[in-house]
Amino acid sequence: MPSSRKDDIVTAGLLIIGDEILSGRTKDKNIGHIAEYLTAIGVDLAEVRVVPDVEARIADAVNALRQAYTYVFTTGGIGPTHDDITADSIARAFGVGIDHDPRAVAILKARYPDGQLNEARLRMARIPDGADLVDNPVSGAPGFQLENVFVMAGIPSIMQAMLDTIGPTLKTGQVMLSETVEARIPESRLAQRLAEIEKTNEGAMLGSYPFMDEQGFGTRLVVRSRDKAVLQAAASEVRTLVQTMSSQS
Amino acid sequence: MPSSRKDDIVTAGLLIIGDEILSGRTKDKNIGHIAEYLTAIGVDLAEVRVVPDVEARIADAVNALRQAYTYVFTTGGIGPTHDDITADSIARAFGVGIDHDPRAVAILKARYPDGQLNEARLRMARIPDGADLVDNPVSGAPGFQLENVFVMAGIPSIMQAMLDTIGPTLKTGQVMLSETVEARIPESRLAQRLAEIEKTNEGAMLGSYPFMDEQGFGTRLVVRSRDKAVLQAAASEVRTLVQTMSSQS
Repeated sequence: MPSSRKDDIVTAGLLIIGDEILSGRTKDKNIGHIAEYLTAIGVDLAEVRVVPDVEARIADAVNALRQAYTYVFTTGGIGPTHDDITADSIARAFGVGIDHDPRAVAILKARYPDGQLNEARLRMARIPDGADLVDNPVSGAPGFQLENVFVMAGIPSIMQAMLDTIGPTLKTGQVMLSETVEARIPESRLAQRLAEIEKTNEGAMLGSYPFMDEQGFGTRLVVRSRDKAVLQAAASEVRTLVQTMSSQS
Repeated sequence: MPSSRKDDIVTAGLLIIGDEILSGRTKDKNIGHIAEYLTAIGVDLAEVRVVPDVEARIADAVNALRQAYTYVFTTGGIGPTHDDITADSIARAFGVGIDHDPRAVAILKARYPDGQLNEARLRMARIPDGADLVDNPVSGAPGFQLENVFVMAGIPSIMQAMLDTIGPTLKTGQVMLSETVEARIPESRLAQRLAEIEKTNEGAMLGSYPFMDEQGFGTRLVVRSRDKAVLQAAASEVRTLVQTMSSQS
């Protein structure tokens, strides 16, 4: 049995910033994308938090997450208006200063025609001391990285472009492999054997996710492992279980 | 100017439980629904957390949220399989016992034909000591309430039915009213005046949310207040601002 290699596990926390998500006016589209992206490159998303546009709340959450996980990603609150307070909140969390960053100002100057780089837009060049910029190919105003914290835009298309830039720079662990077996069997009938299969296949994790569609209830069984051989062995047992149970019903 | 009435503000934390959300395999549909529902009845959703199927992580998050907010809602992890550990985690968070609840067993007995109430299904009747059951009209297995914590299913249709049962029992505050003004103007051009409007209309909050669609960038300006007169005054100023700026561009 392969022992789990702890040092190969890279974790992340995600912080979604914005009153509009908490009020339900805007439906978040970033959690799912980031979760899928990180899983694919071998980073385990271990926690997500959604907090309002309140400086102390953002700073507290960033500090909790950056101490707990290898990386932290934030989305939202880096635009030009008074409710865009993410950069200031990150500076507060790290206890560093914040000012207009010459590199960011240069990007915005190149982006906007003369006379259109007003005070509000210049706000988007406020970057905490010591941070590196993250390129924004969509609309110019950059995100930034401070130590293990990556600050991204909230608009999904911009966030996704920033994540594509950030991804290749990350230390990644062994990718978590997975295989899904769909069954039209109530999960309660599978439960006991699933627990046994997980127990006897060390290094495999089994998730059971009931769903409902027009055909009624079903169960998605997801086998996960960082070890390909373990994954295949456990998945094979799960498929056999489902076939056996299906022929009995 | 009406002063804000703190005692009228009812808050909530939401805990989404499940590895499948953190891996991106399942896209969460519950945050948006619950956020919208609570806002509509006058409960402020103040924080959301997503945590994995790990008992200590669930218990810690429940304890953090139930001390911080009027109510806590959880979704996920109350099914029949080995990875459904929410009820045990809640019992651990409260330091109470957990066992098969006779009321829940009776519901399941009525639901399943003789001989089909197996050990796995009976797991769904495990309810922490002192909890009240929350009706599940869709599939039988109940949620529960322990003090200010409401434990709901993860499947959206079941969660929504449970929330419809819970909603009318909640203490609710003054509903947060809102009005949205859409503008085809970059938010940076509106930023300064928006900050002024928020400042001079005490009790009003202004959010500025950029978006991008096939027509390009736009900005949604959301005015919020618990006071109707304050809302109308601030929204009127915002509409005037947008009209003025639009005619200038």
